[in-house]
Amino acid sequence: MFKIRTLATALALAGSVSVAWALEALPTEAPAPAENPTTAEKVELGQMLYHDPRLSSTGTVSCASCHNTMLGGEDNRPNSMGVNGQTGGRSSPTVWNSAFNAVQFWDGRAASLEEQAAGPVTNPIEMGMKSWDDVVARLKAIEGYQQAFEKAFGKDSISKDNVTKAIAAYERTLITPNSPYDKYAAGDKSALTEQQVRGMEKAVELGCTSCHSGPAFNGAGTFQMFPVNTNAYFEAQYHFKKDKGLAEVTKKAEDEHMFKVPTLRNIALTAPYFHNGSVQTLDQAVKLMGKLQLGKDLSKEEVADIVAFLNALTGEFPKQKMPVLPATPGTAFN
Amino acid sequence: MFKIRTLATALALAGSVSVAWALEALPTEAPAPAENPTTAEKVELGQMLYHDPRLSSTGTVSCASCHNTMLGGEDNRPNSMGVNGQTGGRSSPTVWNSAFNAVQFWDGRAASLEEQAAGPVTNPIEMGMKSWDDVVARLKAIEGYQQAFEKAFGKDSISKDNVTKAIAAYERTLITPNSPYDKYAAGDKSALTEQQVRGMEKAVELGCTSCHSGPAFNGAGTFQMFPVNTNAYFEAQYHFKKDKGLAEVTKKAEDEHMFKVPTLRNIALTAPYFHNGSVQTLDQAVKLMGKLQLGKDLSKEEVADIVAFLNALTGEFPKQKMPVLPATPGTAFN
Repeated sequence: MFKIRTLATALALAGSVSVAWALEALPTEAPAPAENPTTAEKVELGQMLYHDPRLSSTGTVSCASCHNTMLGGEDNRPNSMGVNGQTGGRSSPTVWNSAFNAVQFWDGRAASLEEQAAGPVTNPIEMGMKSWDDVVARLKAIEGYQQAFEKAFGKDSISKDNVTKAIAAYERTLITPNSPYDKYAAGDKSALTEQQVRGMEKAVELGCTSCHSGPAFNGAGTFQMFPVNTNAYFEAQYHFKKDKGLAEVTKKAEDEHMFKVPTLRNIALTAPYFHNGSVQTLDQAVKLMGKLQLGKDLSKEEVADIVAFLNALTGEFPKQKMPVLPATPGTAFN
Repeated sequence: MFKIRTLATALALAGSVSVAWALEALPTEAPAPAENPTTAEKVELGQMLYHDPRLSSTGTVSCASCHNTMLGGEDNRPNSMGVNGQTGGRSSPTVWNSAFNAVQFWDGRAASLEEQAAGPVTNPIEMGMKSWDDVVARLKAIEGYQQAFEKAFGKDSISKDNVTKAIAAYERTLITPNSPYDKYAAGDKSALTEQQVRGMEKAVELGCTSCHSGPAFNGAGTFQMFPVNTNAYFEAQYHFKKDKGLAEVTKKAEDEHMFKVPTLRNIALTAPYFHNGSVQTLDQAVKLMGKLQLGKDLSKEEVADIVAFLNALTGEFPKQKMPVLPATPGTAFN
């Protein structure tokens, strides 16, 4: 179980939240790895690839199908729907601000956005391509992609590596700044309501922010066991423990039920909640987190205050142009 | 069988195509019906609704899933894929320039874009909503839509009628002008290659343009039997006659195998071809049309010339902004 941090006390003593721990506005630019510096050409290509359903076997599923950039960055489904109507066991995490996750996927098995982008394309229940060779062959047959890759990476550069680099470069632009919380953090004390401030202080006091720390409230790179406390009543209802988290990949006992700490940014838009999407409302999600992670029965007022605060984490979505995807003449999907 | 029109002769006599029948550039604005004048607010709302997968039972299929506005306005599939991976028997027609069709759907059963838009949403294998009442209830629960409908239609205006009006208003903006053919029609004689001009003249001479007439090459409102000539060899391969066209709806003998004449605009981008999407290449499509509709065995050169001309009908796709869809907090799809 978590120790309750003493930050709330520091906060209270300071008499103002502006000096405290957690008031970090979301950066407006995401760091890029040395081997994949962000360029306008890569971002443009990445946006095309991200929205292109031809990266799936049936021609019907793009990255955006499950991580919808017109919505909260996911699909509002418990489990996403891949090719031929298949569903998996986990709920799509949001793509917005995913650049601020140190690890990717619910189980944190990918160390970068580049590595993450390589996964779903050849997953048989997600995008269903047989191999990356097939993806590359398909893209090479599209003249417009030959040109877009040349601009971004140089001549004859269509490869798995460059596809994932371009997608990652685009994803690094998907940032939602200027939430009420960010405005508050920048000094506008009227940006949060009294209830939202109460909720923020309560989240610190309870220890929520010991994991959900940093500007994206994701403890960038923190893994945490979920659930910490087994509760037979809730388990019967939500089946959280059916999924062993990171241990599903590593098969190690110490990784059982270990998950990446998800961002709380735009959390109000991304129902349903938890790795298996079994909880529809933020109220219930907060109540469950109190019980399962902190061993606390939160009061209705506490839940309402925290939810009010979480609603203050909804940012501004950047204006995007709609990509124009280059055509594939004379081909068809089945 | 078609009579061969004498327009080609007129064309030849005139010594210039600029005075002849068919050189009509695509209008840059589509006419709107008196009961649904196009406004910026309707178009903006319509773009949101058109791209919103929450108009489907599973939350995974939007109008754009099968009529992709980032591509050639359809999905490059023989049969589109609706909710839960289901497929129907027809190929998605392109949404680009559909404003210039006098009737909609392959069988022309809808008299307007508004009427068309009402169909797929409650089709069990397309978007799968149980009823329009369910659609309206879902939209009414989304605050951002309440506001967008108010702007477009006035207070408390979310209804089936207004959803389809907004979508139709948006679709009327999906026009692709300035194809090489349009530039040629406007007087730029260098816009078409010699082969493309040859192909155009051949298409007129053969009679292709007796049905595929007008600026959208769709004979706006023309129905035509397809195939006109039964050919056992091709029928075994492509099963064109399995689908009775308009008679599937009307059950009338005279409507058997009657289809709307589809536009040839952007045809190079919208493989596979015909109502059942059974033909992958434009070469084969042209050859089949020659045989089945005109009773002619076209030479390889004739086919190549006509295909070259058809490639000159690919227009410029307007720049669009990506819609930001209002969120549904606290709900999930199954």
